[in-house]
Order: sequence, then structure tokens, then C-alpha cells
Amino acid sequence: MATTQGQVITCKAAVAWEANKPLVIEDVQVAPPQAGEVRVKILFAALCHTDAYTWSGKDPEGLFPCILGHEAAGIVESVGEGVTEVQPGDHVIPCYQAECGECKFCKSGKTNLCGKVRAATGVGVMMNDRKSRFSVNGKPIYHFMGTSTFSQYTVVHDVSVAKIDPKAPLEKVCLLGCGVPTGLGAVWNTAKVESGSIVAVFGLGTVGLAVAEGAKAAGASRIIGIDIDSKKFDRAKDFGVTEFVNPTEHDKPIQQVLVDLTDGGVDYSFECIGNVSVMRAALECCHKGWGTSVIVGVAASGQEISTRPFQLVTGRVWKGTAFGGFKSRSQVPWLVDKYLKKEIKVDEYITHNLTLGEINEAFHLLHGGDCLRCVLSMD
Amino acid sequence: MATTQGQVITCKAAVAWEANKPLVIEDVQVAPPQAGEVRVKILFAALCHTDAYTWSGKDPEGLFPCILGHEAAGIVESVGEGVTEVQPGDHVIPCYQAECGECKFCKSGKTNLCGKVRAATGVGVMMNDRKSRFSVNGKPIYHFMGTSTFSQYTVVHDVSVAKIDPKAPLEKVCLLGCGVPTGLGAVWNTAKVESGSIVAVFGLGTVGLAVAEGAKAAGASRIIGIDIDSKKFDRAKDFGVTEFVNPTEHDKPIQQVLVDLTDGGVDYSFECIGNVSVMRAALECCHKGWGTSVIVGVAASGQEISTRPFQLVTGRVWKGTAFGGFKSRSQVPWLVDKYLKKEIKVDEYITHNLTLGEINEAFHLLHGGDCLRCVLSMD
Repeated sequence: MATTQGQVITCKAAVAWEANKPLVIEDVQVAPPQAGEVRVKILFAALCHTDAYTWSGKDPEGLFPCILGHEAAGIVESVGEGVTEVQPGDHVIPCYQAECGECKFCKSGKTNLCGKVRAATGVGVMMNDRKSRFSVNGKPIYHFMGTSTFSQYTVVHDVSVAKIDPKAPLEKVCLLGCGVPTGLGAVWNTAKVESGSIVAVFGLGTVGLAVAEGAKAAGASRIIGIDIDSKKFDRAKDFGVTEFVNPTEHDKPIQQVLVDLTDGGVDYSFECIGNVSVMRAALECCHKGWGTSVIVGVAASGQEISTRPFQLVTGRVWKGTAFGGFKSRSQVPWLVDKYLKKEIKVDEYITHNLTLGEINEAFHLLHGGDCLRCVLSMD
Repeated sequence: MATTQGQVITCKAAVAWEANKPLVIEDVQVAPPQAGEVRVKILFAALCHTDAYTWSGKDPEGLFPCILGHEAAGIVESVGEGVTEVQPGDHVIPCYQAECGECKFCKSGKTNLCGKVRAATGVGVMMNDRKSRFSVNGKPIYHFMGTSTFSQYTVVHDVSVAKIDPKAPLEKVCLLGCGVPTGLGAVWNTAKVESGSIVAVFGLGTVGLAVAEGAKAAGASRIIGIDIDSKKFDRAKDFGVTEFVNPTEHDKPIQQVLVDLTDGGVDYSFECIGNVSVMRAALECCHKGWGTSVIVGVAASGQEISTRPFQLVTGRVWKGTAFGGFKSRSQVPWLVDKYLKKEIKVDEYITHNLTLGEINEAFHLLHGGDCLRCVLSMD
């Protein structure tokens, strides 16, 4: 690795030149890390619906051309000035949610939403010089979510990278960069589900299944999975779902179906789709007096949630979560350790394995009901 | 009192014959309490905006003719079969929020919303025979909120009456039946405001001022009062409000004004008006990552709250409260004791004293900005 340190690296990356047009595998120039930055050789990257959302052009904050990807694992290639917490050769997971430990958010003890680099990552550049480290023939390519993992090499802020146990298989633990922690953490950190609780999970994709897994680990007595695709139900049992409801098979509103099924409503509900009507149903299926609903899915821009205030005045609580409330650099390594101790599933979410060159096909698969996570080998 | 026990009592009460028509002081027949019921001689009753709301006809669940009133104090006249927790002569505060100690809600340890008598009180009758204890010349008059305190005598369920220290002045502690506990409890029980917090209070009526008082007691560092009537600001200082904002004096949306004033938003906000637009502002003025907004006001029927789900996904929490989360029979006596120890204000909320015969004038006063609480002497 000493040969590339301080040099521009030319490697393959999937570039999104325009919204909703196929990604193109390009030879991309990746500049060396500046002060406080880390260049990572990405070995495995998974696809997530947030990548697809921005790619679709529906995300008003999406910038093009860019390199998408935010759920991955790799090895540090080199570090910029002042970087002390990782060094070349460290195994790492890039973290779209940074953790600096010093900002108002990190010090609050109440949230994982570190604010240190957001002003830069939100507009596709690095903090140091407000520029991108990616270019194709001199033309800058925007970063995405501070991670841009659909590239063989990427540059991230030092506060956005978690050092993990080198024994962990990177082709598996790459999933701990987004979807699985989001679901587990929604249950453990945001809702704090107690033993014996009745839980409803709307949407049985990766995040919803991770919610079910987290709820099972928390001792939930009933875990009701709700999805309009009944084919997902069999698989969901393996993740802890105990009962299934398909809203299309009922005439009543789904919230009423669930209230009837549970003698008044569920203790906790989780919306893992990103549909504002489902978010309302998820709140309204909660038990009067204490039911808590957590929004996990990301809704399309401009859409709004609504309900009667009486729903809240009578004791329901409406919350949301980002990265499951996990503090990324502190807790992703802990999740990796839990995986190595077989305390959480990861392998079971991987339904497909492809290569970087097959990324367009991988996105196609992601929209099918069979795919949970497709992991790309970046070789 | 032995002379009236088991007999129908004829006394004066303010009857709402129709929505939005002046109340009429009538000779009302009050039947003796049946099993599990308590007949109370009401000595002092205060007016609250919820009485006015139902009277206005805007409450779709309002039933007429009825006897309004739910914030009062009195003395037990007689008790029905099986009533053990109070006896004739006890000083009591009727509680529109019951506490049976035995239902799913009471036993949950998570809510004060006892469900035992709601099916009856919600439709203006008593549980035992699903009938009213009030009549005028044989015509039944509906109960209201299980309390109907605008009558010299009323009948309530035994789970809806709190026995208090007889040393407490009933002409003052009648306020502990609704507004003051609602505000204090929203802060102490629902939001659980910590020392050093920044708090925003929307609406500086009785409930809003009680929120301010509760926040001050909890050690809030800043208590920002928001009201469109600047005349309310001076008085609010006495209840703990440290800063004032009048939305009509700003061009920016009020949530933005508050975010700017507080370097990112408040830690806790309380909506004490019942306006769904203000409820949205109250949520959106909360700090990213942890800000919690509590809906205390009661919105008009059919109105809905809305916001972008991103507000919740980025860590804000939306809650509501009823009777401030206080368990009525257990905790109203505790609030009375706190008043006797001068740990909470009560007298300061009483701006007017009238008689039952002047009740229409009292409602007129309630809609003016000067009136916090008007207490009626029932003699």
C-alpha cells in the first residue's frame, strides 16, 4: 500500500451521471486524503433503498454526477494529516452517520446525529476544502452521504469510519453499515421495547426483518408482520415474526385490523417502508395510553404525515430513528462483535452476490420482492 | 346530612339545554347514588375551556341537555352500596379522569387513562344502569365528563373522586381538578423536563402558566412564553416565563423565530391552545436529535396535525397528555398537600369569583384575555 499513499489512485467506480439513467463503471481518479480524512479500499458494498431513492431523482437534495453507496466494508489504504484513530491496514465500515464525540449532538447523550461534517456531506463534498476527492478526466464527481462506497476506493472523514475486528468477514459485515443496525436500533435504542410487548412491523424488507429480530431479542411476546406481498411471510418467520397480516386481504383499515387483533392495539409499531399513509396507520394501531410508533422508513420528499391530535393526547407517542439511534464509530464495532458471537444475524439478510460491474442488475434485483440485500464484490 | 341520604335532592344547577344557548339555572332533581357511586355537595366550581368547547356545540360528542363542569371541590353527602374509599363528610375533588386501579390501563404503570367508567361517562350516563341521576321535572339531563360540577349536588362514580385533606380551602383547591395539574403534569410526567432545559410554552392561559410553573420547578434554564396577546406577558413572569415572543411581531414562521433564538431549537415545547397549526410549530421549534413536543390543548373536532416525517426521523418526539398524566385519585391529594406546603401555586390562577347564578357572565369572562380562572361559589 505504500506505493499509493499520497498519490491519486485510478480505480473503477459506478458513476451516476444523471438521475434515473444506468450507472456507468468508469475509471475514477481518487485524490489522496487531506487532513482528517481517510482513504478506504472498499472490498464489499451492499445496495440499500436510499441509494435507489437518490438515483431515481426523487431526492431533491440529490446531486449529479455522483458515486452512490453507503453500506460497505473495506481496508484503510492511507490517512490524512492528524488522523489517529485508524491507520493503513485497519478493517473498517464507512459510516454515513458520523460520530465526532465533540459536537453539541455527540455531547448531549441524547442522540446519534453528529453534526460535525453534515454541512459538507449534505452537499457532496469534503469539509477541508469543500471539494470532492473524486473526478473523471478532471471533472469532479460528488460524494454521497459522506461514504460513496460504489467505488473501489473512497475518501471519508475520520469521524465517519468505524474500525472493526479484522477477524470479521467483510463480505458479511458490510451490512452493518446501514439496514440491519437501523432495524435493531429502532427497537433497542429508539423504542426500547420491553419483554412481553406486542410489536407490529410494517414492511418486511431488510429493515423490517431486523426490527423483528431486535424485537425477538428484546423478548416481545407477539411480533406481527404487515406486508402486501404474502410471499415475504415465510422468510419473516426466521427473523422472529410470529403472525402475518396482509392489508390487501382486509376490508377494514389496517389500523383497525391490528387493534382488533390485539385487544386495543400494539405496544410498539415500526414503519419500515417510507409511506406516509402507512406511518399514520402505524401510529393509529398503537394502544391508547402508551403505544409508541417509530418511523424508520424514509418518505418521498415533500410528503407529510398527519393524524388527529387526539391520538397523541390519549397517550400514543410518535418518534423516528436514523441509523437506529446507534452511535456509529462506538457501536458498529460492538455490532460486529455481536455478529462474531452469533448474537445477531447478518448472513441471512444476504440473498444475492454480484460484482461491481453488475450493479445495474443489482438495483433491478433490489426492487423485486425476493431480494433483501445484494452484496457486490468490488474486485 | 342524614336527612337527605337515600332521597332525591332538589337543588340548583346550570343546565345547558342546547348548544350555544345561555345556561339556565334550574331546580334539578339529583337521584341518590347507586352501587359504586358517590353524591357530592359541590361548594366551588371553576370554569375551563373544555366546558366552553362542548357548550359551543363544536364537540361532536357533546350531548344536550346536560350539566357541564369538571373542575370543582365539595363534600361527600352520601355514598352508594359498596363504596369504601370515601364517606359522607369527606372533602373531595371530582376527577373527570377516573382511577380504578384494576383495569388494563391502571395496571400498566404506563398511563393515567383509566378505562373503567369511560363507556358510560363518554355518553353522559352512569355505569350501573346506563342512566342519568339528573332530571328536571322528570326529563333526564345528561352528565358531562363524569363530573357535572355546575350543580349544587352531583353524582360521580367512586373511581372518579379524590379524597383530600380537609384543611385545604375548597374555594382554591377546586382548581386542582383540571387545568393546573394538566400543565404541571405535562412537564413532570409526560415530558419529564430536566434541569437546564430550554422550554417553549405556546399559549399563556391557565394551562400554559402551569406548564411554566412546572418547568421552573424542574429547573429549566429558559422558559419562553409565546402568545399573540402581549398583555399576558407581564403576568406570565410571575409563573416562571423568562422570555416572551409574540408571533404577530415577526415575519418569519414562529418555529424559525424560536430555532434562531435558541441556537437550534428548544428541548421541550408545550402546545396549550388547541390549534393544530400551533401544534406543528411547537414540534418544529424543537431541537433536532432530542426535542420533545407535548400536545396539551384540545383541538376542534376533525382537525388534524401534520408535519414532514423528517422532523421525527431526525430525533424529535411528538406526544400528548391528558390531565398531565397524573393518576387522579392517587395524585390529586398529593397536589393538594403540595399546595398546603406552598410548593405549588393555586390562588394566583384565580382572577375572578362569581356565583352559580352568574355562570353565563363567567363564561363571557373566560373568553377575555384577563381571565385565568373564574371560581363560582355554588351557594
